[in-house]
Amino acid sequence: MRQSQLFTKTSKTISEDIKIASHKFLTQAGFISESVAGRYYFLPLGMRVRDKVIKIIEEEMNKAGALKLITPVLHPLEFWKETARTESVGFELMTIKDRNGSGFVLGGTAEEMMVDLVRKYNISYKDLPFNIYQFSQKFRDEMRARGGLLRVREFLMKDAYSFHADEEDFKKEYQKMWDTYTNIFNRLGLETVVVESDNGYIGGDYCHEFVVKSEVGESKFFISEDGKYASHEDTAKFKKDDKNVAEEEKELQEVEANRGKTMEDGVKFHNLPLWQQIKDVLFINEKGEYILAIIRGDLDVNETKLKNISSANDLRMATDEEVRAIGSEPGFISPVGIDKKVKIIADESLRTIKNAYGGANKKNLDLMNINIDRDFKAEIEGDIAMAQSGFESLDGSILEEDKGIEVGNIFQLGYHYSKKMNAKFVDSDGQEKYYYMGCYGIGVDRTIATIVEKYNDEKGIIWPEAIAPFQIHLISLSKNEEAQDIYDNLVKSGIEVLYDDREISAGEKFADSDLIGIPYRIVISKKSLENGGVEIKKRNEKESRIVKIENIIQELK
Amino acid sequence: MRQSQLFTKTSKTISEDIKIASHKFLTQAGFISESVAGRYYFLPLGMRVRDKVIKIIEEEMNKAGALKLITPVLHPLEFWKETARTESVGFELMTIKDRNGSGFVLGGTAEEMMVDLVRKYNISYKDLPFNIYQFSQKFRDEMRARGGLLRVREFLMKDAYSFHADEEDFKKEYQKMWDTYTNIFNRLGLETVVVESDNGYIGGDYCHEFVVKSEVGESKFFISEDGKYASHEDTAKFKKDDKNVAEEEKELQEVEANRGKTMEDGVKFHNLPLWQQIKDVLFINEKGEYILAIIRGDLDVNETKLKNISSANDLRMATDEEVRAIGSEPGFISPVGIDKKVKIIADESLRTIKNAYGGANKKNLDLMNINIDRDFKAEIEGDIAMAQSGFESLDGSILEEDKGIEVGNIFQLGYHYSKKMNAKFVDSDGQEKYYYMGCYGIGVDRTIATIVEKYNDEKGIIWPEAIAPFQIHLISLSKNEEAQDIYDNLVKSGIEVLYDDREISAGEKFADSDLIGIPYRIVISKKSLENGGVEIKKRNEKESRIVKIENIIQELK
Repeated sequence: MRQSQLFTKTSKTISEDIKIASHKFLTQAGFISESVAGRYYFLPLGMRVRDKVIKIIEEEMNKAGALKLITPVLHPLEFWKETARTESVGFELMTIKDRNGSGFVLGGTAEEMMVDLVRKYNISYKDLPFNIYQFSQKFRDEMRARGGLLRVREFLMKDAYSFHADEEDFKKEYQKMWDTYTNIFNRLGLETVVVESDNGYIGGDYCHEFVVKSEVGESKFFISEDGKYASHEDTAKFKKDDKNVAEEEKELQEVEANRGKTMEDGVKFHNLPLWQQIKDVLFINEKGEYILAIIRGDLDVNETKLKNISSANDLRMATDEEVRAIGSEPGFISPVGIDKKVKIIADESLRTIKNAYGGANKKNLDLMNINIDRDFKAEIEGDIAMAQSGFESLDGSILEEDKGIEVGNIFQLGYHYSKKMNAKFVDSDGQEKYYYMGCYGIGVDRTIATIVEKYNDEKGIIWPEAIAPFQIHLISLSKNEEAQDIYDNLVKSGIEVLYDDREISAGEKFADSDLIGIPYRIVISKKSLENGGVEIKKRNEKESRIVKIENIIQELK
Repeated sequence: MRQSQLFTKTSKTISEDIKIASHKFLTQAGFISESVAGRYYFLPLGMRVRDKVIKIIEEEMNKAGALKLITPVLHPLEFWKETARTESVGFELMTIKDRNGSGFVLGGTAEEMMVDLVRKYNISYKDLPFNIYQFSQKFRDEMRARGGLLRVREFLMKDAYSFHADEEDFKKEYQKMWDTYTNIFNRLGLETVVVESDNGYIGGDYCHEFVVKSEVGESKFFISEDGKYASHEDTAKFKKDDKNVAEEEKELQEVEANRGKTMEDGVKFHNLPLWQQIKDVLFINEKGEYILAIIRGDLDVNETKLKNISSANDLRMATDEEVRAIGSEPGFISPVGIDKKVKIIADESLRTIKNAYGGANKKNLDLMNINIDRDFKAEIEGDIAMAQSGFESLDGSILEEDKGIEVGNIFQLGYHYSKKMNAKFVDSDGQEKYYYMGCYGIGVDRTIATIVEKYNDEKGIIWPEAIAPFQIHLISLSKNEEAQDIYDNLVKSGIEVLYDDREISAGEKFADSDLIGIPYRIVISKKSLENGGVEIKKRNEKESRIVKIENIIQELK
């Protein structure tokens, strides 16, 4: 392709708000262009990359036996009501009505559409398993879009859904998709960490994120020193060692405590360890119900864990007024004697201490020697604690916090959707049974951004060959027939060439070339011709070498 | 691919409401599945066909120098307001708001999005022309969906938009796209008639539809005997021969006319020719304004022509009450002495007659010897007449009515969008000038349906090789290793094979094979092996022939 035909010119300057390399370079080089916040055009250069990424994903999915199809963009709202996802997805869901008043969802994922399709067929155990996937535009009405393609409101996703007779069969597919994803990201030049993660609004019992480590990523996770355990911060489990559990339970006492409202104030006032204090955080869920999360003072509550354990779709911290409205006091909340309508959820760490201290639901009044079971009961006990670097994994390896970009994920769905939507197959015993399901997503746009995050320098992008928009950037520094001949020959040999035939300075051409990041650069100039040919240089090399014109194609192979 | 892995089984029966061949066979064979009315899944078999159609379109568009890109699905509503298409598209337009209250359109075409993209760049005459295109899902909130993929509410469209310095340059591109479309449809096995047509809500001055003749099509057009003129019914021009124009104008007379309300009643009552009577049709536009269309009695009004000439977005016939409300009378409407607020639009055919007759805006009262200019004036005169078979084209060839399916269209847009959206380039003289534009669409889904309409028999589809989901349907009638070997060898040779490995009867396999319509069928059975090999038959042939197993691949080449 001739560069003179690309109307999407590179730009030398860019808004100072754009900080992230992939956002900056993809925009400046003319791969993408923002329409309105979080909605992007893929421009001709960007499309070439996107098509290559799609092709690699498609090849690997097909190799794994998955079948490509596509659903309508508008999902009937009634299906989303069947699965109650209209509630759990919340604000991120966009809905629309047609002229007849029928409601539709602009889907973020397509479980309902796939299950509705499948339940229309008479499927027997002999037809199972199968895995169906699509590439389609997904919608998430994010509060804030950020970082170019990293967090957007519309994006292309490869989403796959597998249907099985039972869990055992599903587990094979889960492993197969795990391996397929590893292959896909390898081919795309991305090294991934596979971390346990939270299901979000997808449903099901467990899932894994494929994360590429990166400073600009939003996926915080913990990985053990021995590398055997990796989990998202919202699911990371760790050892909560016993503290003073051997102590005898002492008598509960109410004491005057003219202290401040923070945990530190409590420690200072009573001169007792932080871990012995009870941390109380009062939340309100989407139904307006009070939830009191309590945890050992040296730990923090992870809201996602709390959401999951309390089956809340949404949680927010109670205001001071709301705390007082139930007869308690900010900074002095206590599970002991709290209003009965408050649901108490205790972290299991409270089983590692005795004779704890904390507020007494009244201003400047504390309780000493609080003990679970004796002094209060929790409606739910479990893990609602946030992991931290230095904590030990359950098998004793030290956890380290890291972060990265989530480029893909695989989900166990189990019977979550098939039961809600009554989707069944006929098993070998003649009985109708629910499908056991999984689903598997890759964000194409975010994957492209991640590749750029990994492959760039201060001058621009350095595309891996497998997904580069072109293999060769041919730059002619003087009007000459040789350049045209080389271009024609390369194209004839089936090599993808971007030919910079524009009448601009050498400096501008080199700067554009570095910015766009095509793997090989060939420069033809008077000087190179005097030296016997053209200069060839890889994008990530400093020095070019002279190659005879007749040897170019051979040299590239 | 093994047929046993296709969960989308063929169905033997189908709803009796499904009458159209493409709808029936694509559904029954498992190429598509309807979600809700007018919104379809493309299933694995359908996706293979769709991908091939896309590839052919893409290859030809690229050959013509067009650049592929893609816009977001949601188009900011403000752009559609800039071009006033929010009004002209009317009910077909779906709009949605995000959580921040920003309005978006689910686009039926993407002129605004493309112009907005282009106006962000500093483009000089040297960068022109360029043609940018995308494949993307389009939305039309049709009152009624019908005929499977023929009229749907969501569909994949290839839409291209070209930007030029002037009309002359545009015309070259228009011709290039005309040729490109002809190539595309030829490669897809479709013979097209290119007919002039109406712009609809796209804007611009002229356009052409690519129509495949078909009984199930909705595009009515007229084509001249000599084939030199073809035009959609909404744009077809024809000779309106002079009738009695040589006559002297006689005195206007009011006469009692105790007749019925139809044109025929008038003819009978006055015993005068139909063509001498004035036909009056009263319409009301979207603003509530009255529009009186008048035309020679032997002709009919074409509403689209009337809409265009009167710049109405929408027209409806006035009710009897509304006719009376402006002091006239149903069956006796007349331009002579009609309420001044009524806008009179006269067909040019009224210039071919003298001394016409018709109603007098009062019950049972007619006017004789009505003459234009003398007795009434029209606000607009022009062509609002419907062509008919047997009429003469402007250059004297007889017109014949025909109909077909519109699979593509090319539009002159001129300055319509660039002026409304203030999109300019810098010309060689340093002046900023508006782009001269064109746009070019192909409905991918409808094209697929049209191919099936053309290529089928009573048993099912007969796919042209270029877009068949597979080239070979390998059918094994007995469990045997030979079938597996043949399958493996064909796949190794890069041939696309659907291998029917299911444990069902030969009859069912043959019926499915005919229904799915893969070009070549290879049957391996005890009998064929006894006869020395396999039976090969083309889908559209009656007789099969025996080919030795080792010669299959050679035979297929």
